[in-house]
Amino acid sequence: MDYKAKAYILSIGNELLIGRVTNTNASWLAQKLTLLGYCVERIVVVPDNMDDIVEEFQKALARADIVISTGGLGPTPDDITNIALAKALGRELETNQEALEMLRERYTKRGYPLTPEREKMAKMPVGAKPLPNPVGSAPGILVEVDTRLVIVLPGVPAEMEAIFTEHVEPILRSRGKPYFYREKIIRIKGVPEADLTPILRRALKIDEKAYVKSHPRGIERSAPLVDVHVYASSSNEEETRTIVEKIEQFLVEEIKKTFEQKADITPLS
Amino acid sequence: MDYKAKAYILSIGNELLIGRVTNTNASWLAQKLTLLGYCVERIVVVPDNMDDIVEEFQKALARADIVISTGGLGPTPDDITNIALAKALGRELETNQEALEMLRERYTKRGYPLTPEREKMAKMPVGAKPLPNPVGSAPGILVEVDTRLVIVLPGVPAEMEAIFTEHVEPILRSRGKPYFYREKIIRIKGVPEADLTPILRRALKIDEKAYVKSHPRGIERSAPLVDVHVYASSSNEEETRTIVEKIEQFLVEEIKKTFEQKADITPLS
Repeated sequence: MDYKAKAYILSIGNELLIGRVTNTNASWLAQKLTLLGYCVERIVVVPDNMDDIVEEFQKALARADIVISTGGLGPTPDDITNIALAKALGRELETNQEALEMLRERYTKRGYPLTPEREKMAKMPVGAKPLPNPVGSAPGILVEVDTRLVIVLPGVPAEMEAIFTEHVEPILRSRGKPYFYREKIIRIKGVPEADLTPILRRALKIDEKAYVKSHPRGIERSAPLVDVHVYASSSNEEETRTIVEKIEQFLVEEIKKTFEQKADITPLS
Repeated sequence: MDYKAKAYILSIGNELLIGRVTNTNASWLAQKLTLLGYCVERIVVVPDNMDDIVEEFQKALARADIVISTGGLGPTPDDITNIALAKALGRELETNQEALEMLRERYTKRGYPLTPEREKMAKMPVGAKPLPNPVGSAPGILVEVDTRLVIVLPGVPAEMEAIFTEHVEPILRSRGKPYFYREKIIRIKGVPEADLTPILRRALKIDEKAYVKSHPRGIERSAPLVDVHVYASSSNEEETRTIVEKIEQFLVEEIKKTFEQKADITPLS
């Protein structure tokens, strides 16, 4: 896989570690980042604990160009992501005037006072830029660290998605040259995954910009069912499409040749 | 939160990092571990890459008593979790005879030959114990490392869940004394999350075996909606229940006293 830059996702919140909430934020972000040409190196789920969050921000910054966190941006005592980020960067935490203005405007409109709990959401590391929240209160936080970017988003999915789409995606898209991600999935009925292995091994060697992975889907009417996912990413749109199509064609031909009538092949996408 | 021991979940698979698959395995396991009294320290998603998997197994073993991985146990070229685990432990990889017998029995029954790809699933670090897979092919792997346990499960959810329920849960339950997890959720309509903060802060201080966290659920008919989750874990069943009930009662009384008719409180569980 070729890619624009490395990304790291930090998901902050005890509710994820006690299994109360499934991490749909991470898969949503991972898909967006992949489509933009980034390679997501890790998704790490961290508890609402200062030392843990500081540690994971530092680890992520040591390895990735783009670090995106979700969670811990609200007004309650366990919302400490802004403080942890400042500590991780060794920067002072200050009230960001632009963020304070966003909060003041929002609360004035809704008739709520700007209490200390609400003002807390304007506190950001020195040098940060607030990202307006179109559907909730807490602004996101963007910090440049040398050539890297840290992006801190709320945990409420609708807020996270809105800030990302309106304010983060355009920035990530404009960094470096454009990248193109293409994929195909073919479903094979009648051949056990293990018997596809020699063909998959050869398919994996066709182009290093591509990846090929099989996902067993169980047994359907007593015949094994396997989805094979082919995907590639590169800075050349035409090349990316051609690679994926070439590998798909190779798989279909080889599977037909090897298993003949036994294999029932359907392109899924 | 009081707990039996620390746990670490490693989720292995590119499909999670490109956002094609949501990590439901991790939330399923996290919930099970929490109910058994374990504290899940981290969930880490790792690509299908040898160095990354070896590194994360080693990090997990340095910090947790129980390490559970999912994914990378099948017959295809990217299924390398068994090899990575042996490397991480500095142990030889060998064909486990008990695992080979499980595979032979399964494939004989289904009329498939025991090819090298299938035999690969019997390869385990020296000293490992295979965990029978009641619904698929690849056995799980259990390795004791001093007083710690590494448990390696397949990525297919039905197989992971079946091996965990039949073979892992009884082991985890029997380690140390029993633990009890209790929780309550109350839904508050009409009070913004920020205004609940002073009460939440006091609730958090009632008992260190408990945790209290609010989750904003957005706006319903122009009134804010917040779920407050109270949970505790301890080795005393009666005590655990009492703590949670005491905090729930405190929250309900304080919210009623502070916001009177403005707050509409519903116990959700």
